[in-house]
Amino acid sequence: MDHITNVNDGLYMATTKAPVNIAVVKYWGKTNEDLIIPANDSLSLTLSTEHLCATTTVAVGKKFREDRIWLNGKEESIRSARLQNCLHEIRKRSQEALRMQNDLPDYTGWNVHMCSVNNFPTSAGLASSAAGYACLVQSLGILFHIEGDLSGIARQGSGSACRSMYGGFVAWLKGTNPDGSDSVAKQIASSDHWPQMRVIILVASDAKKDTSSSHGMMRTMETSTLALHRVENVVPQRMKDMTGAILNRDFNKFAEIAMKESNQLHAVCLDSFPPIHYMNSASWDVVTLVHRYNRFYGTNKLAYSFDAGPNAFLFLLEESLPEVLAVVEYAFPTTARGVDFFRGSPAVIGKLSDELKNFMNISPQQDAVKFAIITHVGDGPKPHEGPDAHLLDVHGYPK
Amino acid sequence: MDHITNVNDGLYMATTKAPVNIAVVKYWGKTNEDLIIPANDSLSLTLSTEHLCATTTVAVGKKFREDRIWLNGKEESIRSARLQNCLHEIRKRSQEALRMQNDLPDYTGWNVHMCSVNNFPTSAGLASSAAGYACLVQSLGILFHIEGDLSGIARQGSGSACRSMYGGFVAWLKGTNPDGSDSVAKQIASSDHWPQMRVIILVASDAKKDTSSSHGMMRTMETSTLALHRVENVVPQRMKDMTGAILNRDFNKFAEIAMKESNQLHAVCLDSFPPIHYMNSASWDVVTLVHRYNRFYGTNKLAYSFDAGPNAFLFLLEESLPEVLAVVEYAFPTTARGVDFFRGSPAVIGKLSDELKNFMNISPQQDAVKFAIITHVGDGPKPHEGPDAHLLDVHGYPK
Repeated sequence: MDHITNVNDGLYMATTKAPVNIAVVKYWGKTNEDLIIPANDSLSLTLSTEHLCATTTVAVGKKFREDRIWLNGKEESIRSARLQNCLHEIRKRSQEALRMQNDLPDYTGWNVHMCSVNNFPTSAGLASSAAGYACLVQSLGILFHIEGDLSGIARQGSGSACRSMYGGFVAWLKGTNPDGSDSVAKQIASSDHWPQMRVIILVASDAKKDTSSSHGMMRTMETSTLALHRVENVVPQRMKDMTGAILNRDFNKFAEIAMKESNQLHAVCLDSFPPIHYMNSASWDVVTLVHRYNRFYGTNKLAYSFDAGPNAFLFLLEESLPEVLAVVEYAFPTTARGVDFFRGSPAVIGKLSDELKNFMNISPQQDAVKFAIITHVGDGPKPHEGPDAHLLDVHGYPK
Repeated sequence: MDHITNVNDGLYMATTKAPVNIAVVKYWGKTNEDLIIPANDSLSLTLSTEHLCATTTVAVGKKFREDRIWLNGKEESIRSARLQNCLHEIRKRSQEALRMQNDLPDYTGWNVHMCSVNNFPTSAGLASSAAGYACLVQSLGILFHIEGDLSGIARQGSGSACRSMYGGFVAWLKGTNPDGSDSVAKQIASSDHWPQMRVIILVASDAKKDTSSSHGMMRTMETSTLALHRVENVVPQRMKDMTGAILNRDFNKFAEIAMKESNQLHAVCLDSFPPIHYMNSASWDVVTLVHRYNRFYGTNKLAYSFDAGPNAFLFLLEESLPEVLAVVEYAFPTTARGVDFFRGSPAVIGKLSDELKNFMNISPQQDAVKFAIITHVGDGPKPHEGPDAHLLDVHGYPK
């Protein structure tokens, strides 16, 4: 009964925090839409919940008349097929858990109330479904006494959520079983494996998403004549190379593969019909800036990655952080510059040498970036405890 | 001696006009950089010289002390390897011609003066090398009495120039001979085969090219893991399908392949490392607009194609021209709108119905397009004659 709050004999509750993750070998396309089985393996970094996380409270109540869910303060439909799949799997696994340990209270027949919030602005276009589903599944797993890997359940909520079930550097293996049972996440290295790794998220001003990732990847798989070649012939080697780069802490190689993977994701989007377009002119300003920075040093000291939106995820080592922040500050001035521009970890902005500035030949882009979040690799979902931890009140309703 | 002006016994001259072409199955990448042998076949439409053309005068003079060339009023180095290859081939073929017809004046030992101008602004970022080399090679071919196909020589000046050696719909076959001797252009259909075909060129305001096509395609062939798959597995079928669409005058199919080819060219550019980026936000506005227009009609009535720059080439049938011009005028207002915005063929601007306008939901982009050229499919290079035709004076120097 660890991490479960027994409010009364008719109401149990658990709350967790779960991280977002950013892929450096990209997931884009499924072989099974219902089970969410991906067309290829992928690999991501789990980001610290200090700066970006979802928090979810799940309550199971004898008196609840139906399953209900509230996201960011608003009740949403419980009928979503993906949510139903997750709840179904949880209840099935719960029965198994009860058969193993019959001293546990059996409330698998009761209904659940679920309440989830993100600590980052949803308008920023940062993928929230991965953290959200990871958090939901982790909370449900605790509440229903489920032991072992939950990533296969999180996967059925939102594919990349399975990678948020672990901290550090995480692979999502597509698996080979048609039922998806071996399509799960595996930790490649823990969050303290490469402590110098830093991530800066540059939130683009115009971060509205035109094509959802689900629709986008479906269109790519159906129409791109390059996507299948990527899936079958390019990604397997990149998974090996990226795993090696991470295990060897080879930043130059890590950066190269991360950038090539981001570029290829957007290339197969462009090769879709009609073409899909997520990177905007601010994204391209970042690409240009990163390649010029690396050319100055003759090695990759900085990498970019873009998901299904214009926001840039920059990867770098701690030693480069002050200078890179100076470059970012110079390249993306904002009219409202202030304490709010750099968020997350404290920003120690270094000096931008004239030599570097002249070499990079940057044209500053006013207000192209709204704000930046400085963060690092972090752990997987964690129970969130304490008197005010729960998002649901003693009756099981949102506070 | 047809089309040759005998200025005096020591000075002969010939002038031609040659067209630009726009590929609908794209050329991007060589298997031999020196001989300019392409990695795949390509297919293009030759555009009318009425609106866009190069004009070149070539003179051969007993007293000329060296070969010289002037482009758009400025003398350029004669040392370019590509230019030397063309001159070398011309002189070789000229010897053969002389052996066949020994009543011709032999001036193969003399030097040449070459002078070429384009009738379109070079700043517009419209590829001028194809028309330029086609024109140069055609003029030299006339002057040196060379019979037969000259596209293999034009190819060595600028790959896509070989397609400008014919009018109408033209394929460039990569060939199989290592010496490039069968890498030549062939006419698929003449310029009057599909008289309803129209082309609108939307010249983007910010048309500066970052990466030259030569460097870009070399980078793609060296670094893209998708490009080889395109070349080997995608293009052959598209050549067949596009040839069929043209021969059957199937605009819906023609448009689909043209757009997919454009998208895939830019996809392999994005998959290059560092990535290559030619389409800007105005280009993407055009892409969105075209797909919405086609969705309104439930068939492809309009197609786009982009080369190594942000300018859009629109394809459409004559019947759609008035409405499409109305869409363009509405979508791309300019502060300096006037007679100068629509150039080329006379613009009869139709009515934009509220139904179409509402369906398309366009956000007009002020000054994103500088001007538009309305044109159509045209013929290959033609001799340019008459008292003022030549660009060189009676001494063989630029007028």
